[in-house]
Amino acid sequence: MSDTPLSRDDLVDLDQDDPLAHYRDQFELEEGLIYLDGNSLGALPKAAKTRVAELVEREWGQGLIRSWNTHDWISLPERVGDKIAPIIGAAPGEVVVADSTSVNLFKLAAAAVRMRPGRHKIVSEPGNFPTDLYILQGLEAFLPGEIRLETAPRERLETLIDEDTALVVLTHVHYKSGELFDMAAITAKAHEVGALMLWDLSHSAGAVPVDLNGVDADFAVGCGYKYLNGGPGAPGYLFVAKRHQAAFRQPLSGWFGHAEPFAMRDDYQPAPTIKRGLCGTTGVLATGVLEVGVELMASADMALIRAKSQRLGELFISLVERHCAGQGFALASPRDADRRGSQVSLTHEQGFAIIQALIARHIIGDFRAPNILRFGFTPLYTRYVDIWDTVQALANIMATREWDQPEFKTITAVT
Amino acid sequence: MSDTPLSRDDLVDLDQDDPLAHYRDQFELEEGLIYLDGNSLGALPKAAKTRVAELVEREWGQGLIRSWNTHDWISLPERVGDKIAPIIGAAPGEVVVADSTSVNLFKLAAAAVRMRPGRHKIVSEPGNFPTDLYILQGLEAFLPGEIRLETAPRERLETLIDEDTALVVLTHVHYKSGELFDMAAITAKAHEVGALMLWDLSHSAGAVPVDLNGVDADFAVGCGYKYLNGGPGAPGYLFVAKRHQAAFRQPLSGWFGHAEPFAMRDDYQPAPTIKRGLCGTTGVLATGVLEVGVELMASADMALIRAKSQRLGELFISLVERHCAGQGFALASPRDADRRGSQVSLTHEQGFAIIQALIARHIIGDFRAPNILRFGFTPLYTRYVDIWDTVQALANIMATREWDQPEFKTITAVT
Repeated sequence: MSDTPLSRDDLVDLDQDDPLAHYRDQFELEEGLIYLDGNSLGALPKAAKTRVAELVEREWGQGLIRSWNTHDWISLPERVGDKIAPIIGAAPGEVVVADSTSVNLFKLAAAAVRMRPGRHKIVSEPGNFPTDLYILQGLEAFLPGEIRLETAPRERLETLIDEDTALVVLTHVHYKSGELFDMAAITAKAHEVGALMLWDLSHSAGAVPVDLNGVDADFAVGCGYKYLNGGPGAPGYLFVAKRHQAAFRQPLSGWFGHAEPFAMRDDYQPAPTIKRGLCGTTGVLATGVLEVGVELMASADMALIRAKSQRLGELFISLVERHCAGQGFALASPRDADRRGSQVSLTHEQGFAIIQALIARHIIGDFRAPNILRFGFTPLYTRYVDIWDTVQALANIMATREWDQPEFKTITAVT
Repeated sequence: MSDTPLSRDDLVDLDQDDPLAHYRDQFELEEGLIYLDGNSLGALPKAAKTRVAELVEREWGQGLIRSWNTHDWISLPERVGDKIAPIIGAAPGEVVVADSTSVNLFKLAAAAVRMRPGRHKIVSEPGNFPTDLYILQGLEAFLPGEIRLETAPRERLETLIDEDTALVVLTHVHYKSGELFDMAAITAKAHEVGALMLWDLSHSAGAVPVDLNGVDADFAVGCGYKYLNGGPGAPGYLFVAKRHQAAFRQPLSGWFGHAEPFAMRDDYQPAPTIKRGLCGTTGVLATGVLEVGVELMASADMALIRAKSQRLGELFISLVERHCAGQGFALASPRDADRRGSQVSLTHEQGFAIIQALIARHIIGDFRAPNILRFGFTPLYTRYVDIWDTVQALANIMATREWDQPEFKTITAVT
């Protein structure tokens, strides 16, 4: 790249001109820590500390059962869903927060196969985020002979999508490579043969522009604890396009999805709205904390986020190429920033140990088997100068073989 | 009852002699509030306030992604499950905390029907807790022709349990009446015909002695936010008897139930242990807060809890009969304390307004349609004197028709 900075000062200058720079102060980030794993677990918004104390002490401790009404716990799933909606190009009333991404994927996939009776295939790609494949395999094993999961690498994916396909399930931004799918093209291909399209937005929402209604998506799920900064294991969310809501019936028909849950009748009657996507009692503390992260993300301009994210990625790649040349790294993400989410992945045969050596220097990226080093850029709190410092540390670790120590061989991590 | 106290002082004396009295100080309870709704949402343990701050600020804020290892978030579901186990007569490795009660019920019921191929019935009772029926109806609608839900009132329930029954699903303590099922007898009846037995312990665990392995139960689910004091919408838990774990396959096969989740392979391989009951990423904040409530409950002697619970119930019934005679109340719970959980329900045609009038006096019970007033007794923080004060307030409300005001006609509530 032609604009590779020559010094750390060039990046300090970029930070000074960054229109998103003020967001960093809204997060708790330890002095001296460079956190490049917000694509796995987002940082703590400062406002979440006061909110959780309020939820616990005032709403639970003092309000007790009354808070379902007085603090409107009842509408939390829809309220937070409506705040997520603009981040993913959905309309009000199309998104609810509930359960985990995995549970929500099961609900939607199960509903979708029943909306396409007589079709036998769910299509996905190998190497999709594991839980997506596992959930679809669970559905397949539960409905033997009725539905089967078929996968093909993305270059041959379209050949699988045919008149026997009930549903296509793909993750918009790949968790390892960061490669983006063309949502509009794949959705159109699915619709062309009468199949439904379900997007997993876990690695997209809050990181790249998403326009569910613009691409005519049918269903989507996503994660609350990555770029939405909702806290470890935050609830997920689900999207059902308005046009499908009346026909949408999911098997996890718990009481919070009932038209009148507190009438406590014996017969299930789905809520007429997106609430039919709910199952059990809302996890109030976790959903309340997620709301803080979502509000923060929704307040930022997505065009600015995307521009900074792409710039951070380009700078990282060009600096690695300049300062770590000949050290055995290869780029595992698309070089074209328009085809990449908000992360850059490298391969290296000593990737695991190298990531541990970085962590020991308080620079946190993560490792994904067999040989991927992931660096996530979260424009709300990643600074340009962090990129410089990371690459210098990486260069130093390689030059001195700092990674080659026994204590850098034994940790697991979670996306 | 012969031992009905004659004065408030008699109850003050009982509190002074109560070996559980010191537990009350471990909960946040506003001065002047009488909380008789712990069967719906348990009170806030004081220790949960510091724990949640630690989870948010230290584990999430500072530890970030590293806390999956350094704070052992990974083993939370099993760790808290193992702490619940002794409360419900389960062994270590038989219980995990995850998702909601409703989601867990779906997992277990779905797994159970596949463990009894060729059988077509799930048996339950009308008036079971609504979400239990709704989840079973969801499964029925999802597997048309394969499985159907059949219900009969408990006096005729056994006639439904036959060779075509895959699973019997019942709630141990009825949410409205508080009536207890004979777990041993019903479980034996199910096993006699080769059916599996699933108990919902939501209104039992922490309130009455439960001995899952003693009665040879196959499966169980339960709620974290009632007597376990885990906070609003706390995660639920599930139990799978050791003998079934190898054959147990549930369709919500998310990555946290995988044998090696972080190997991130394409094919689902269930964990060899109870972890196969997990689905998505653990809700760390909510599970960490639940752990505090569970530890507090597990530290108390269940024989003392049961004895106090029964005494509270008996005193309440006898005082209502003495002080509210002729006011239109009828007992909706079994009079025999051995057949009753830790609540007493009354019926009254003005039940809704009467409960609101009590709430206005800072005495919190709840109402269940069409005419049930529920009073839950949580021996860790309900005082004997609270019973006296509640009945006096009730008598006063009835004598003066205080309930007959327009503002006492419009609130909903949640169990």
